[in-house]
Amino acid sequence: MPLTVLPIKSTLKKEQFDLFESLVTDLENSSMVPLEGDVLVISSKYIANSQGRVLEYNKVMPSFDAEKIGKKFRMKPTIAEIILRESDIIFGGIPGFVITSSDNIMAPNAGIDKSNTKSGTIVLYPNEPYLVAEHLRRKFLLKFNVHVGIIIADSRLMPGRVGTVGVAIACSGIEPTSDLRGEKDLYGNSLKVTFQAVADDLASIANLKMGEGSDATPCVLVRDSNAILTDRKIREDEMAISYEQCVYVRGLGMRI
Amino acid sequence: MPLTVLPIKSTLKKEQFDLFESLVTDLENSSMVPLEGDVLVISSKYIANSQGRVLEYNKVMPSFDAEKIGKKFRMKPTIAEIILRESDIIFGGIPGFVITSSDNIMAPNAGIDKSNTKSGTIVLYPNEPYLVAEHLRRKFLLKFNVHVGIIIADSRLMPGRVGTVGVAIACSGIEPTSDLRGEKDLYGNSLKVTFQAVADDLASIANLKMGEGSDATPCVLVRDSNAILTDRKIREDEMAISYEQCVYVRGLGMRI
Repeated sequence: MPLTVLPIKSTLKKEQFDLFESLVTDLENSSMVPLEGDVLVISSKYIANSQGRVLEYNKVMPSFDAEKIGKKFRMKPTIAEIILRESDIIFGGIPGFVITSSDNIMAPNAGIDKSNTKSGTIVLYPNEPYLVAEHLRRKFLLKFNVHVGIIIADSRLMPGRVGTVGVAIACSGIEPTSDLRGEKDLYGNSLKVTFQAVADDLASIANLKMGEGSDATPCVLVRDSNAILTDRKIREDEMAISYEQCVYVRGLGMRI
Repeated sequence: MPLTVLPIKSTLKKEQFDLFESLVTDLENSSMVPLEGDVLVISSKYIANSQGRVLEYNKVMPSFDAEKIGKKFRMKPTIAEIILRESDIIFGGIPGFVITSSDNIMAPNAGIDKSNTKSGTIVLYPNEPYLVAEHLRRKFLLKFNVHVGIIIADSRLMPGRVGTVGVAIACSGIEPTSDLRGEKDLYGNSLKVTFQAVADDLASIANLKMGEGSDATPCVLVRDSNAILTDRKIREDEMAISYEQCVYVRGLGMRI
């Protein structure tokens, strides 16, 4: 079966809302019924909005560190303060952007985003995205009696590239990476770089269909993806490698 | 129409071969006829193989610089020599891997790859991938009278992530990025991070279906992708940003 990607449209919501009920309504309005093995890729911003993770940034009081970072990277101290609060590590950056890490997710500006929210407000990363993904998966199982995969996806720049691709910030119900270490290549050699980022690949498919603009497609249904279904709890660190092992973190910033 | 992704299987080829004829045969064997607007995503390694870009690495004579890099990053001096020859910039790395840039493409180890080739040999990046993509596009137009998009794709690690996603190393016939700068978001704000990496997203879809192992799926046909068709020549630098502007290159390697 060919893989198919079906965009699920929604409506603009200005307040917190029930995520599962909203997804069910959107699926019904698209005349879609989830089938066993379908993967729902949902925008992280949609989930953050459902949680009310929206902040009026001018009401934030910047700390001394935020003033310093704001000056160094030419960003508002209030924005720098939010980035500081939301991130575990700040690596460095360019004017307007710093690279941060929050809960094992590397992102420009801790994933906070001023688009698709009221002027003067900012959307933060969702709270406990793995828990949200797992709860959604169980609710779909109870209501539709099917095992679906859930991916919470954001858009992300890649090094040296123009434009955003998708990245999975959490998932449930599917194996997030496929481990090919036991496999042989066409010539019978053992494979060396041996993981495929299945959840990130699916997030990129969704990125293509979601758009960043006003077209309000917060969810995409992927059918026949061949992603491996699982009931086990996916750990937060399974899609991430430690920065000590990352060729970009260790390799960039210096030239030979 | 939902987007659909159709894998096109091929057969193992041990020598140089005619790329277009081979793709036509593979499409016929899959009972597929390309339609107007279809995008063919083709593995860069398949193209390199068609060009005979395969090297016996033990026959390479390492230079003094290659010996130095080999020592620093614990790789064979012969491999380091090939990486040096194939890359314009070497940033730095970790044992076994350096981050390089070749023709505006950032890649670990200049994109050279020891898997899916005879033991003792290495597959280089294809020669003139943009020209290859454009020639393929024209041949499909002449034979099938349809405008197809061509993407030459490789798999690539993202910073801090486990597993590979897809990256477009060249394309023709489609706009490689969608420019959303004129567009407004749901609230009428102008969008800020405003490009979508359409070709990279499509390369990731293909990455999911191609596999890295012995399953020999060097080509994937994407139908109804909504990628914008174009006859203009795509420039080598359109999908790349300068490293001076790249938040990863400038931001990683230091911690605040």
